[in-house]
Amino acid sequence: MAELKNDRLLRALLRQDVDRTPVWIMRQAGRYLPEYRAIREQAGSFMGLATNPELACEVTLQPLRRFELDAAILFSDILTIPDAMGLGLHFVQGEGPKFERPVRDARAIDRLGVPDPGAELAYVTDAVRTIRKALDGDVPLIGFSGSPWTLATYMVEGGSSRSFGRVKTLLYEDPAAAHRLLDTLARAVIEYLNAQIEAGAQAVQVFDSWGGALSAEAFREFSLRYMAQIVDGLKREHEGRRVPVVLFSKGCNTQLEALAGTGADALGLDWTITLDEARGRVGDRVALQGNLDPAVLLARPEAIRAEADRVLESFGHGAGHVFNLGHGITPEVPPEHLGALLDQVHATSPRYHGRAPSPSD
Amino acid sequence: MAELKNDRLLRALLRQDVDRTPVWIMRQAGRYLPEYRAIREQAGSFMGLATNPELACEVTLQPLRRFELDAAILFSDILTIPDAMGLGLHFVQGEGPKFERPVRDARAIDRLGVPDPGAELAYVTDAVRTIRKALDGDVPLIGFSGSPWTLATYMVEGGSSRSFGRVKTLLYEDPAAAHRLLDTLARAVIEYLNAQIEAGAQAVQVFDSWGGALSAEAFREFSLRYMAQIVDGLKREHEGRRVPVVLFSKGCNTQLEALAGTGADALGLDWTITLDEARGRVGDRVALQGNLDPAVLLARPEAIRAEADRVLESFGHGAGHVFNLGHGITPEVPPEHLGALLDQVHATSPRYHGRAPSPSD
Repeated sequence: MAELKNDRLLRALLRQDVDRTPVWIMRQAGRYLPEYRAIREQAGSFMGLATNPELACEVTLQPLRRFELDAAILFSDILTIPDAMGLGLHFVQGEGPKFERPVRDARAIDRLGVPDPGAELAYVTDAVRTIRKALDGDVPLIGFSGSPWTLATYMVEGGSSRSFGRVKTLLYEDPAAAHRLLDTLARAVIEYLNAQIEAGAQAVQVFDSWGGALSAEAFREFSLRYMAQIVDGLKREHEGRRVPVVLFSKGCNTQLEALAGTGADALGLDWTITLDEARGRVGDRVALQGNLDPAVLLARPEAIRAEADRVLESFGHGAGHVFNLGHGITPEVPPEHLGALLDQVHATSPRYHGRAPSPSD
Repeated sequence: MAELKNDRLLRALLRQDVDRTPVWIMRQAGRYLPEYRAIREQAGSFMGLATNPELACEVTLQPLRRFELDAAILFSDILTIPDAMGLGLHFVQGEGPKFERPVRDARAIDRLGVPDPGAELAYVTDAVRTIRKALDGDVPLIGFSGSPWTLATYMVEGGSSRSFGRVKTLLYEDPAAAHRLLDTLARAVIEYLNAQIEAGAQAVQVFDSWGGALSAEAFREFSLRYMAQIVDGLKREHEGRRVPVVLFSKGCNTQLEALAGTGADALGLDWTITLDEARGRVGDRVALQGNLDPAVLLARPEAIRAEADRVLESFGHGAGHVFNLGHGITPEVPPEHLGALLDQVHATSPRYHGRAPSPSD
C-alpha cells in the first residue's frame, strides 16, 4: 500500500498534535453533488451503486476531487449486514430503506446467522481495496457500520420508524430475545469491520443513528453495551498503525461519559451540545468529532464561516478535534457552500494548534 | 369557581409534599381513545373540534371518566396562535399541520400582529371556562401554548419539517428578523397564556417540541431566551393560588440548568435522561415532570409496571415529581395499558412520599 501522505485525521482521532484541524463531512459522497447524482442514475438503484466496487470507488473519490478533505469514507450503506443476513434490503422512493423480510419474533431472531464478510459482503471489502488503491495514500479511508441497536431498529420495524414501537416492544416484552439479536449483530459488526480494516480501512466509525430513541437506561443496556463489545473485538492495529474507532450515538449527549468509557478513541457529536461542554465532560479520554449543524450549510457563506469559527473556538486549543457536521450533509446544500466551510476550517484552525497559548496571547 | 378537591399536581409542581406522585399524560385526550375518535369524526376536522368549546370540553373530560388522573389538560393545538395571526392552519391527512400562508421573509414577519385572546382566540378561553365548570373542582386544568421557537418552525417551514432548513436559514442569515418574529410570538404567548389563566387554567405548560433541533448556542439565543421572557410575563397567581409554569423542551437535556434558571416552576423531561441525573443537575430549583418512554405503553402490562416503578425509583424520595410520559401517548396504545400504568403509579408512589426514609428502611 502507498504510504499515507496526510495523517491529520488519524493523529487527531488519537489526540496527537496536528498543524490544523482535520475535516471530513458525513455523507460527503452524496446527493448534494451533481456528479454523484449522475452516477447514481447510471447505476439504476442505490444498492446497485453500493454493490459495485468500481462505482462505489468513483463516488467515494468525487468529493476529494472538488474539495480539500482530510479523509475519504467508504461509500456504502449502514444496512449491508441485515441485507447479507437475507432480509432483502430495498429502497422505496421517498420512504427510505425497507426490508422484505423483517425480523418479527424470537424464532426469526434465532435463525439469523453472522454473514461471512468474504462472501455475502465481499463487494464491500472489494470496494475498500479498490478505493485504497485509487487514493494512493493521499488521505486515509474510513470504514463504517451501523450499530447493533440501529441495525435492529430497521430489521424489526422493517424500515425507518418514528416511534420504534415494534422494536421497543421487543426490548420490553422479550429482553432475552432482544439481547440475542443484538449479540448476533455485534458479532457480525466485529467481523465486518475487521474485514474492512484488513482490506485497508484506516479508521472505522460505528453509526448509532437511533441511540437517542432509547431511554437512558435502555440505551446502556441495549445499545452502549454492544458498542463496547464491538470496540473490544476490533483489530486496533493494522499496517503498523493504530486504527482509531469512532462511536457516533446521535441524540445521546447525556451518555458521553459512558460512551467514552467503552475504549473508543473518539466520539462523534451532534450539534445539541457545545464541544466545550463535551470536552469538559470526557476530558482527555477520547477525541471529539463534529459538530456543526448541517442546516448552517444552507445559509450564506458569511454565516457558514462565522459558525465554523464558533465550532473551532468551542473546542479550543489543543489536540483531539476532527471537524465535521453533527449529521450528514443534506441534498439541498450548494457544493460551493461546503467549499466555503472547508476554506474557513483550513484558514482558522491552525491558531488552535502548535504551541500552547500563553497568557499574553 | 368550585374549590379544588385534588391539588396534588399543583403542589408537586411547586415541590410541596403530596401523599402520592400526581400523574397526567401528555395527549391524554387523544386518538388512542375510541370515544375521542367518535367525537373527532362527528366534528369533521381537528380544528372543528378544537374551536368548538363544548366538544373541546367533552374530549378534555373523556380520559378523566376512564382513568384516575390528577389533572385535565385543555384540548387544543399548539398552533392556534399562528392561525389567529392569519396563517391559515389546516391539517392534511398523514402529513400533519400545514399553513396556507407561511412566513417567508422579513416583510411577512413585520406584518404579524399579536392576536387578541379575547377575539380571534376566544374559542380557547371559552373552552377553558366550560371545562373548569364541568370539572367542578375535581382536578386542576392545565393550559398550554407552543414555545416561540416551535411556533416559528411551523410558521416559516409552512408545516412539519425534518431538517428545519428554511427557519434555520432565517436564524443564520437574518438573525435580527428572526428575533423580531420570536419577540412577537413571545408577546403573543404571554397574552394567550394569561388569558387562559384568567379564564381558569390552574397551571400552564410551554411545549418547546423542536428546541432539540437547535445547536446548543442557537437554543439559548433563539428558544430559551423567549421562554424566559414568557415566564417573566405570566400572571403567576390567580384565584388565590400560585399558577405553576412548566417548560418542556424536548431533546434539550444538555440545557437543563439553563432551563431551570428561567424562573419556571417545573421542567418536562423526555426519556433520554434519568430523573436521578436530571434531579442532581437542577437540584431544588424546579420540579420535574416525566419521563416514561411512550413506547413502553405498547408492551404488556407487566413490562409497563416494571418501567413505571423504574421511573418512580429514579426520581426517588421527596417532593417535586409529576409522573408523565416523555412525550405524547400514541394512537396505537390500548387504553387498558394506560390503566395499568396509572394503577401502578398509584400503588407504588406513596412509598416515596411522607416521612423521609431512615437508614433502617
